[in-house]
Amino acid sequence: MIPVAIVGASGYTGLELIRLLSSHPIFQISAITSREFAGKSLSSAFGFSGKYGDIVFEMPEPESIAERAKGVFLCVPAGSAQEMAPLFLKRRLKVVDLSADFRFRDISLYERTYKIPFKAREYLDRAVYGLCEIYRQAIRDAELVGNPGCYPTSILLPLIPLLKEGLIHKEGIIADSKSGTSGAGRKAENYYSFCEVNEDFKAYKVASHRHTPEMEEKLSDFAGEKVQIVFTPHLLPINRGILSTIYVKFRAPLERIYEYLQEYYKGEPFVEIMPLGAYPRLSEVRGTNMCKIALFEDRERNQGIIISVIDNLVKGASGQAIQNMNILFALPEDTGLPRSPLFV
Amino acid sequence: MIPVAIVGASGYTGLELIRLLSSHPIFQISAITSREFAGKSLSSAFGFSGKYGDIVFEMPEPESIAERAKGVFLCVPAGSAQEMAPLFLKRRLKVVDLSADFRFRDISLYERTYKIPFKAREYLDRAVYGLCEIYRQAIRDAELVGNPGCYPTSILLPLIPLLKEGLIHKEGIIADSKSGTSGAGRKAENYYSFCEVNEDFKAYKVASHRHTPEMEEKLSDFAGEKVQIVFTPHLLPINRGILSTIYVKFRAPLERIYEYLQEYYKGEPFVEIMPLGAYPRLSEVRGTNMCKIALFEDRERNQGIIISVIDNLVKGASGQAIQNMNILFALPEDTGLPRSPLFV
Amino acid sequence: MIPVAIVGASGYTGLELIRLLSSHPIFQISAITSREFAGKSLSSAFGFSGKYGDIVFEMPEPESIAERAKGVFLCVPAGSAQEMAPLFLKRRLKVVDLSADFRFRDISLYERTYKIPFKAREYLDRAVYGLCEIYRQAIRDAELVGNPGCYPTSILLPLIPLLKEGLIHKEGIIADSKSGTSGAGRKAENYYSFCEVNEDFKAYKVASHRHTPEMEEKLSDFAGEKVQIVFTPHLLPINRGILSTIYVKFRAPLERIYEYLQEYYKGEPFVEIMPLGAYPRLSEVRGTNMCKIALFEDRERNQGIIISVIDNLVKGASGQAIQNMNILFALPEDTGLPRSPLFV
Amino acid sequence: MIPVAIVGASGYTGLELIRLLSSHPIFQISAITSREFAGKSLSSAFGFSGKYGDIVFEMPEPESIAERAKGVFLCVPAGSAQEMAPLFLKRRLKVVDLSADFRFRDISLYERTYKIPFKAREYLDRAVYGLCEIYRQAIRDAELVGNPGCYPTSILLPLIPLLKEGLIHKEGIIADSKSGTSGAGRKAENYYSFCEVNEDFKAYKVASHRHTPEMEEKLSDFAGEKVQIVFTPHLLPINRGILSTIYVKFRAPLERIYEYLQEYYKGEPFVEIMPLGAYPRLSEVRGTNMCKIALFEDRERNQGIIISVIDNLVKGASGQAIQNMNILFALPEDTGLPRSPLFV
Repeated sequence: MIPVAIVGASGYTGLELIRLLSSHPIFQISAITSREFAGKSLSSAFGFSGKYGDIVFEMPEPESIAERAKGVFLCVPAGSAQEMAPLFLKRRLKVVDLSADFRFRDISLYERTYKIPFKAREYLDRAVYGLCEIYRQAIRDAELVGNPGCYPTSILLPLIPLLKEGLIHKEGIIADSKSGTSGAGRKAENYYSFCEVNEDFKAYKVASHRHTPEMEEKLSDFAGEKVQIVFTPHLLPINRGILSTIYVKFRAPLERIYEYLQEYYKGEPFVEIMPLGAYPRLSEVRGTNMCKIALFEDRERNQGIIISVIDNLVKGASGQAIQNMNILFALPEDTGLPRSPLFV
Repeated sequence: MIPVAIVGASGYTGLELIRLLSSHPIFQISAITSREFAGKSLSSAFGFSGKYGDIVFEMPEPESIAERAKGVFLCVPAGSAQEMAPLFLKRRLKVVDLSADFRFRDISLYERTYKIPFKAREYLDRAVYGLCEIYRQAIRDAELVGNPGCYPTSILLPLIPLLKEGLIHKEGIIADSKSGTSGAGRKAENYYSFCEVNEDFKAYKVASHRHTPEMEEKLSDFAGEKVQIVFTPHLLPINRGILSTIYVKFRAPLERIYEYLQEYYKGEPFVEIMPLGAYPRLSEVRGTNMCKIALFEDRERNQGIIISVIDNLVKGASGQAIQNMNILFALPEDTGLPRSPLFV
Repeated sequence: MIPVAIVGASGYTGLELIRLLSSHPIFQISAITSREFAGKSLSSAFGFSGKYGDIVFEMPEPESIAERAKGVFLCVPAGSAQEMAPLFLKRRLKVVDLSADFRFRDISLYERTYKIPFKAREYLDRAVYGLCEIYRQAIRDAELVGNPGCYPTSILLPLIPLLKEGLIHKEGIIADSKSGTSGAGRKAENYYSFCEVNEDFKAYKVASHRHTPEMEEKLSDFAGEKVQIVFTPHLLPINRGILSTIYVKFRAPLERIYEYLQEYYKGEPFVEIMPLGAYPRLSEVRGTNMCKIALFEDRERNQGIIISVIDNLVKGASGQAIQNMNILFALPEDTGLPRSPLFV
Repeated sequence: MIPVAIVGASGYTGLELIRLLSSHPIFQISAITSREFAGKSLSSAFGFSGKYGDIVFEMPEPESIAERAKGVFLCVPAGSAQEMAPLFLKRRLKVVDLSADFRFRDISLYERTYKIPFKAREYLDRAVYGLCEIYRQAIRDAELVGNPGCYPTSILLPLIPLLKEGLIHKEGIIADSKSGTSGAGRKAENYYSFCEVNEDFKAYKVASHRHTPEMEEKLSDFAGEKVQIVFTPHLLPINRGILSTIYVKFRAPLERIYEYLQEYYKGEPFVEIMPLGAYPRLSEVRGTNMCKIALFEDRERNQGIIISVIDNLVKGASGQAIQNMNILFALPEDTGLPRSPLFV
């Protein structure tokens, strides 16, 4: 067993880590922290039963935690993670950071995007972007992983291989994404109250979401030149799931693109290219670490349309974080990660 | 046209009053108040279009409002209403108070229930409980109406006639009620956040809800002796609607009870006794001022079961408030109040 | 009072017509038809209370209906409407057809799209496309209106004025639309069952939806040349509402486009251009005949983004049908049509 | 590995069995059957990924299946199961039947309740009612288990120990239950279509649900005399979960009852008695095999109130079926069964 800790465990990604780790055969949760719930058990605070029902939230004291863990998941806000990660790295823990702090290669881009100074410069080189299927090789040698954003996961998985191979145009990419409300985290705001989300639907942060620079940096890296992406997020009245409808211009016939992508992700446990004509649904990935991708073409209008679905709390956050931790500890990458959905 | 004002108009009952009054042919909204949104238009604050989109929230200053209105709806918390109502009454406005302040005949019961001292004693005699179909006669002569609670409306309408007529036993009454989340008001709390209500269901305030004393006072009045009611409220993951499943012991055959109740509510525009065997649904009253009531019997187990449905924001709050105001101003009682539902 | 009939009244658009007409001061429903529910009252079949609760569904016999009505709403499938409309027109009724049969100018386009031969050729010239704000003048002189599709209503209202004025490019238009499930009608199919829609989200008919040709015909008419639109519909787990996110290339600064559109729709009761920066929500139009439109620009990526919202059952169907009937009978266009939403 | 088959695998309980068995370390699915989907893979029919994505539905041919399995789950309608079970039992498979066919001790009660003749009389003695925590001893020696109904599971777990111990009165028991819509199965009916369940709530089969006789038989067995229960089911607009609010008369102080029940279920992995004052929520058991039980008392009105929650598809069906199969094969009872919830 490998002991791991979760810092900031009382948010939705923290609770989802606990759910997933409850059936992980190797990682054993040794500590969970929460300022708000320190002293309370997981059972009394959130009604969790099972393996970790009796574990008690503690204050986030890195020194104490480091003594009891070999790996740590950081579920803290951007800005805090860059302060905490070094404390754990110094004590030789592997760190998977679910915040945005270590996602960027370009520090100034991070600072402009998040309006936060980046102070952990000496650790930047050790950080790898944790989109497992794409950066696997680098993650293996890393100590610190910047777990990707939920939207970027759903968009980069289909786009990176196609851009790299030159199968789509670098211009005119539009991603129209729809996310379940858990993506906003556990928040007491009117905007996210039941009556104002239920039976409603709305776009937000049009042309200004912080995941756009994250995606553009990665896309540009693989395209070999600057790539832009128009990104529009929307809030779905459901708990979990992201569906991204991505508009691109194909540079090859649909069938060729389909074959390439299928070949590219062949053998990947968590990425599935759907048969042409099939439609992905959020229910098919609910509770799983899967990303399902479907390709369409409007031939008459010369438009490629890619649709991808993930569970934002799993492949879009906690599941991918465990996948990264699996890689960091040289475990089989799919250890403890579900692929069969709660279909209803 | 009769000018009316809404004090505390930025909550859900306030906004529902505005929606309903938008198609009221006689009442004209002359002022809406909100400390939070003072200075903002209804359109900019809540995206309302239509007749009142340009009306601007103002601070709740009774003197100014009283000059511009003949009737006032109080949508303020219990405790505040008893302070404001006298200011309007002195200026000869008719007042419909949607809080609990003027619902009780027994002041000490109110004070124990709400933990608030009752200070408007001299106005108590002028206040009438605004369950229109039952207290109509008294409301006609009143200046001040205590609009009933949402749960009590759904429970008292079937029970009062039956108790009064001795058709059900006074003992063993249980009301198991389920309410949409708008009943909790516009609130920024985790407990009411989308992800924690959606796909969930829970009881709350078991044996301790403040609507129990309100109901028991009224039931006892009509029964001529003390009547108790066990009341269990639950939170439904929907916006609107209350369904109450009420367990009683019949003292007459089902058919006789059915006939009595149908006769009792004959000609009432807003109360409908469903044919025996038919099931009421929340969708049949959505957006309307209707209360639909169905009677069942488990003969083998000697149990009467009454099911009633209302839209908690309409018959359970703002619609009944307008019905009361209609009575206060001697208008036809159904003026401006919808009966046809948004079926989907 | 003007008597009107609804043929095919047991579907969601029929029931919504009944709800809306319940508070219409001039139109009086004289007949409702339904093969499935013939002989049953609206109250017994759907639990409707109110003005029309006792009206009884009858079989769709045009001759009998024509004697009792001056206007008729056809809520029947494409193919049936073109057979029924002439029967009513011959008897000098005004006809608003909610199906697709009379939406097209180009018969062959209709036939290719709906795989149905068009047989009512002699009536084609009398039919007008019922997008009221755009075709008002022609509707006034018409006897037969082809009520627009729900998606087209949400997309054409913002696009037609801009294309006509040359403020957006004719190329590269993409509409990513999301619709509530009532748009599919009252259907007993697994695909639309609660458990398979709830907490799910999915695209459908990518590059193959029948509303695309409808939109392209109208857009091309106003652009003066062939215009194509890439259209992707999605199914939202809510009852009502369409939000369309439309990607266009602006040919003028955002502010100029905003001013133009605001001027264009000035005084329109049912179209509202939102202040720059404001986001439309479905809840702001729920139950109303409004279309709200917001304009955004991703300046860095040179992309215009237009977001529009309607209630698909009101402005997208039954509300606009009544608006058309109002015009046909020279009534004030907003007669009996709500603009204030059920905010929750 | 122990090979098991699922007959009738394309319904919701079948799909949930597949999800749960995907992470079961011992049971290996060797065959799934479905007349509707025979020849299709689980992936192509329902989009399942993971371990069993490629498994293909076959026609339900017991002989062929029996050769490849040691245990079989029957997810077929009542009436069919009694025909199939013997075919498997003869071939020495262990059978867990999720239908009602083998739940009853009293055949005539079954026949009256389900209006189906009971033909498998010779197998009745070998069948055990599969409420694991109560009938564990008998299940160990059985070959055939009648898996309990979903509602009975939620109601019997709290009531049986209390009745047996004489801690509650045998009279006046009322269970007001609310179930998610998956309880109705995968059905193409208007009644269960999205728009008619969403934002709605309704009671059904009042005083006539078939789970009442099932419960009364078991309760009476433990009470030692005839016990009746008034049972009212309701349909919740959510996918999963049952909450039962049970009204009983306590025969001992609340604290004593609490201690007794806690002691009774001590060490049980799947039953949890909540601390006094705590409220159970469906979200706390979502996706898990847990039953959580809370006790309340309305002292002033002398009423005991018990609230229990389960996931109807897990502890109420497929999870308990696996728990039973675990017992039948002498595996640790909690093998492969989740206890940590999808909290959102």
